[in-house]
Amino acid sequence: MAAKLILFPVPIGDGPIDTALPPYNREMLNTCRHFIVEDIRTARRNLKRMGYEAEIDDTTFFELNEHTPETDIAHYLDPIAQGSNVGLMSEAGLPCIADPGSLITSMAHRQGIEILPLVGPSSIFLALMASGFNGQNFAFNGYPPIDTNKLTASLKSLETRIYRDSQTQIFIEAPYRNDKLLALLASRLMPTTRICVACDLTLPTQYIRTRMARLWLTEPPQLHKRPAIFLLYK
Amino acid sequence: MAAKLILFPVPIGDGPIDTALPPYNREMLNTCRHFIVEDIRTARRNLKRMGYEAEIDDTTFFELNEHTPETDIAHYLDPIAQGSNVGLMSEAGLPCIADPGSLITSMAHRQGIEILPLVGPSSIFLALMASGFNGQNFAFNGYPPIDTNKLTASLKSLETRIYRDSQTQIFIEAPYRNDKLLALLASRLMPTTRICVACDLTLPTQYIRTRMARLWLTEPPQLHKRPAIFLLYK
Repeated sequence: MAAKLILFPVPIGDGPIDTALPPYNREMLNTCRHFIVEDIRTARRNLKRMGYEAEIDDTTFFELNEHTPETDIAHYLDPIAQGSNVGLMSEAGLPCIADPGSLITSMAHRQGIEILPLVGPSSIFLALMASGFNGQNFAFNGYPPIDTNKLTASLKSLETRIYRDSQTQIFIEAPYRNDKLLALLASRLMPTTRICVACDLTLPTQYIRTRMARLWLTEPPQLHKRPAIFLLYK
Repeated sequence: MAAKLILFPVPIGDGPIDTALPPYNREMLNTCRHFIVEDIRTARRNLKRMGYEAEIDDTTFFELNEHTPETDIAHYLDPIAQGSNVGLMSEAGLPCIADPGSLITSMAHRQGIEILPLVGPSSIFLALMASGFNGQNFAFNGYPPIDTNKLTASLKSLETRIYRDSQTQIFIEAPYRNDKLLALLASRLMPTTRICVACDLTLPTQYIRTRMARLWLTEPPQLHKRPAIFLLYK
């Protein structure tokens, strides 16, 4: 079988692996000795908890983050030409979704390399499943603008897509800004637009709640520094 | 622990369960005796392969499809008030994504019922992971218009979002129309817009390929009646 690029999801929380990953992922993990990762230290820890059996000293890590020079990245898939699988791991969740991993998959397509994406958790899709919102038409928009005026303009345009196209709008925020964002959403959106807040997904403290924008103004949850997904729909 | 609504993903293909689902899902499956399903016959088969141990005769099925009267649906979550978990299963992939399950999750939110979404496969997200396209901003648009003129107009508007907002555009098609759709995409999109075709995901015949629109005009793959996802990006 030709060597390939394998995309490894990583559990979102610290819970047991068997809530997050199919057993097959562990089997595939142990076919790789080369991994492209965002941070080597957390990658080592994740490999261990995901059942990687080889010695870490026999493992090659390629770092992919904002400090990586493009000239380095160009060589990250070289082991595949020599017959060895390469694994691409996220820090948490699905690789290449809400992270810069597509630099690597895009390069793999240009080089005609086979890509094997594996099943795993994604807070975006778990939140969408549980939101009660339209799952037949939805958009993930990444981070909202920080500037309040720009955010207000952006919300106006997202509400157009919600009401005109029946498209659920999803975004994330830096966890220390969650409470501020929710307060802004609750006050700036049309009163009947619904907000779903999904927080600490897959953790024992998981919180998923959907209600109309104006109802979030009273007794809002404490989201400070907790990973959260925000979804909007009519 | 209070009874809840549990969202059960179903494997996409006929492959072994341990490539598709975390072991925890089986454990949760066996806490349910009530299931909301699209089709009872396929649901029975899926329950069996997913490791459901109770007798099917002791199991209650609530059907949710285009023939279900709304007055019936209103009672589907009643077992939860009586202390029993209710499971919501898709036909394949993640419930409430690209299916009408959000009718049920939306009702659960109105009734203050806790929702537990479980991890599983989704051809949409596996395709996005492997596409090489932007996973930090993307939209799933469901089915494209069948009428060729409407499709052309719709592609124009999707290309605007690709080039202006850097947003990956994703859609699906009825499998018997795949070949026709790909030919239309290849001829109607701007020549440098890239198309990713992801077909038979999680199956041994899996096919994932990304190239520029005009290159799909020569030697296109045979997609007839194979489940496929189409993704577009610059």
